[in-house]
Amino acid sequence: MADPSPTPRKAVIVGAGPVGCLAAISLAKTGWNVDIYEGRPDMRLPSSKAAAQQRSINLAISARGIAAIEAIQPSAADRFLKAVIPMRGRMIHHVDGQQESQTYDRDGQCINSIGRGFMNEDLLTEALALPNVCAFFNHRVLSVDFDGRTMAVRDSDTGKEIEVPFDFCVGADGSYSIIRRQLMRVVRMDYQQEYIPHDYLELKMPAGPPTDIGGDPTYLLDPNHLHIWPRHTFMLIALPNKDKTFTCTLFAPTADFDLLRTPEAIIEWFSTNFPDALPLIGEKALLDDFARNPRSSLMTIKAKPYHYKDRAILLGDAAHAMVPFYGQGLNCGLEDVRVLDILLREEAVDPDISVPGEVDERLARALDRYSAGRHEDLVSICELAMDNYVEMRHSVVTLAYLFRKTLDNVLYSLSARSVPFSSVVPVLSREAFPSPSPAGWLPLYTMVTFRPDISYSIARRKARRQRKFLEYAGWASVAAGLGVVSITGLTLWRRTGSRG
Amino acid sequence: MADPSPTPRKAVIVGAGPVGCLAAISLAKTGWNVDIYEGRPDMRLPSSKAAAQQRSINLAISARGIAAIEAIQPSAADRFLKAVIPMRGRMIHHVDGQQESQTYDRDGQCINSIGRGFMNEDLLTEALALPNVCAFFNHRVLSVDFDGRTMAVRDSDTGKEIEVPFDFCVGADGSYSIIRRQLMRVVRMDYQQEYIPHDYLELKMPAGPPTDIGGDPTYLLDPNHLHIWPRHTFMLIALPNKDKTFTCTLFAPTADFDLLRTPEAIIEWFSTNFPDALPLIGEKALLDDFARNPRSSLMTIKAKPYHYKDRAILLGDAAHAMVPFYGQGLNCGLEDVRVLDILLREEAVDPDISVPGEVDERLARALDRYSAGRHEDLVSICELAMDNYVEMRHSVVTLAYLFRKTLDNVLYSLSARSVPFSSVVPVLSREAFPSPSPAGWLPLYTMVTFRPDISYSIARRKARRQRKFLEYAGWASVAAGLGVVSITGLTLWRRTGSRG
Repeated sequence: MADPSPTPRKAVIVGAGPVGCLAAISLAKTGWNVDIYEGRPDMRLPSSKAAAQQRSINLAISARGIAAIEAIQPSAADRFLKAVIPMRGRMIHHVDGQQESQTYDRDGQCINSIGRGFMNEDLLTEALALPNVCAFFNHRVLSVDFDGRTMAVRDSDTGKEIEVPFDFCVGADGSYSIIRRQLMRVVRMDYQQEYIPHDYLELKMPAGPPTDIGGDPTYLLDPNHLHIWPRHTFMLIALPNKDKTFTCTLFAPTADFDLLRTPEAIIEWFSTNFPDALPLIGEKALLDDFARNPRSSLMTIKAKPYHYKDRAILLGDAAHAMVPFYGQGLNCGLEDVRVLDILLREEAVDPDISVPGEVDERLARALDRYSAGRHEDLVSICELAMDNYVEMRHSVVTLAYLFRKTLDNVLYSLSARSVPFSSVVPVLSREAFPSPSPAGWLPLYTMVTFRPDISYSIARRKARRQRKFLEYAGWASVAAGLGVVSITGLTLWRRTGSRG
Repeated sequence: MADPSPTPRKAVIVGAGPVGCLAAISLAKTGWNVDIYEGRPDMRLPSSKAAAQQRSINLAISARGIAAIEAIQPSAADRFLKAVIPMRGRMIHHVDGQQESQTYDRDGQCINSIGRGFMNEDLLTEALALPNVCAFFNHRVLSVDFDGRTMAVRDSDTGKEIEVPFDFCVGADGSYSIIRRQLMRVVRMDYQQEYIPHDYLELKMPAGPPTDIGGDPTYLLDPNHLHIWPRHTFMLIALPNKDKTFTCTLFAPTADFDLLRTPEAIIEWFSTNFPDALPLIGEKALLDDFARNPRSSLMTIKAKPYHYKDRAILLGDAAHAMVPFYGQGLNCGLEDVRVLDILLREEAVDPDISVPGEVDERLARALDRYSAGRHEDLVSICELAMDNYVEMRHSVVTLAYLFRKTLDNVLYSLSARSVPFSSVVPVLSREAFPSPSPAGWLPLYTMVTFRPDISYSIARRKARRQRKFLEYAGWASVAAGLGVVSITGLTLWRRTGSRG
């Protein structure tokens, strides 16, 4: 390794979303010179904000995401916690209009609805406030020469192609990542993308009228719940926004959407399936949204490895797109940054040590450990997210589910070792990959959503063991019940016999 | 649909390998104007032949591939059958130098070693002999606008980029298919690529000396076998060539290859593991090949769907790369062409009917049926090929395998409904997707390799059932055996008892 040099090495971050911005902060704080490259315009410009309305405008952030931000930029975490709308549970809307609240956690922990634009802008501002971070918008990466440590970028303002040298490249450029595609040319990457046969469409539910003249508008539904209209093969959900509106998302099989071609068909279908939601959204607004908003696909992306030598790594959706049904997509991406941050520190990667033309063995080792250690967690959450679609649109209204959930919670309450947490102070694990399985009974949802000290893979494995136990317990109860019935029967028979 | 027009529509075939050439013949024969685009130089030029030596020089062709060629261009099939070297079975080379022949089929059916160059050139010549087929070499496709029905192609001789209009595009451009990547932009394609942690390296075994002065050279090993040196975690194989040489391929874990860094290590490892092969290959030639030949990776690619509207389809490795251990890669690709050929005829697709700007519903339906019906077969053979790696490098020398294989063959012989076939007249199924499971007992290898009338998926399912039966039979025998032992024991005990 060469002698220390006074100029820190350069990290380029591709993608200025929340994950890219947090990665920029993490690397800049450990001394890297950080340049962010983003193909879209600066999200802080008013023109960008209008365009961004087309994308989903709120995100669910929970303990894992907050813990990650907390670990890297505590001031931002505090601000976000003041800006979120906490959701205590699911509000199930039955077809008859009846509403039923199912809380997420016995200790009152919440998931939180946060504006995507607000959060992204805030993290970007935090990043750019650091002296060693720059951002280039309207700069689209065309190709990367990882061995030559340069990337070709097109500046869409001037139309010119520029060559950007770098030491370390972070691909945080989302599901359709160009960095991932470029990495696949030099890395033997196992890669899988799988679409589900369902689409989604966003709809807007307006704010309600003020309670008094000149007063503020009100929420049309309880703002402290994630609202679900589960209809077995399809569902509607709604998340609250700060402006008292709700963002609704309709998830349905592609074939169902194909039938909703005329205004009459749409209104008819909504009034049959979501009779209470239709008047709240409004027929005209519904039809406008159907006509204007894009119908989008949903897919899972799995990859391995995520890195190349000491040269590049993929974080967030670029590495692991998942279906949105566990509300963990963003949380997982932010946790990626925290895990990498811990590993870079553990391996004592020093951006001030220049290694021209050579490989920084420490950085290479940190990235290697990331790929090896993080993979099972990422696969786990991708699969849990897929499982949760069935839970949200179907299971939540079945008796078996409600029975299991009740039992789950009873066992959780009885479990001596369980500790109550507040969503305001998320648990921080001090290791990149916490390994021991936690003691006591813990519902899966609690582990995934409220316990960042438990990795996704451990949560899934523990939940499987617990579920097996419940199954055995179920059979044991059936057996015990049969035993009681038999003994009673036998006793009665003997009595009858003795009387006869 | 518009009125018939006298100018047939244009199909572009991307890739001039055996699959692309056979597809060109198939389409040209049903009236399409066919243009083949190939990024590499014309394989018939002497300079190309030298370059092609770097790639694997022989291929295994068996009944499925021959049946496909037979169905589309019978004259070529006849020529190939005269040019192949039939391999009746595997010749297992034990570490002690002992050789053991395991025939592939009780009726003497063979797989065949054929020169890649010979076969490809022959099919290309057949295609170009048709008046409506043209080929453009050194023409690399850059991008495709499927909706606009044009593709951008770079002519590497002139360096110019040209725009090629088309009506129908066939991607037969191999594992790293550009057509597949372009299709993924417009189709919701489920896609998976998976590397195995093993590499391969080709080695040359020279021809032996002539038996008499002025005579022809001889084969150093029996030419009518596929030679295998199975060593559990790695293996060497050898296929015969017409010039009396063998092409050997070493398959081993990447980590094992990494240890073979010095000439001493290579020679030491070979003399320990392949003591009989080393003198035949020769130490100098072995070291030269290790130094010069590329060490390549092995991967499986699965995708779905394979088509886009009436616009494009993927055939061969572009759609389904597989590891080479069943010798079915090429056979499967050629069968793709036959299946498509049958479907286009069944749907009565007419290239003389022009549909400017519209969708040819018949063609769209044929492609749709292809994706829906062919997928399970393609996944099946990809997975069977993977399973066969364990069989070839490990199982073939285990007692359990030999026992099962014997039993398999005994049951096959006993099976009344089995019919002997000759490898010279492969079975042609008249349907694209033959569905009923064949009667009688058939070994998996026989079904996959010698029975093109049985689809890959049916072969796999039937083999699973047969295997389950054998397992039950095995347990039943054990139980029967225990029964006999018990009865004998009991009888003896009673006798002893009556004497005592």
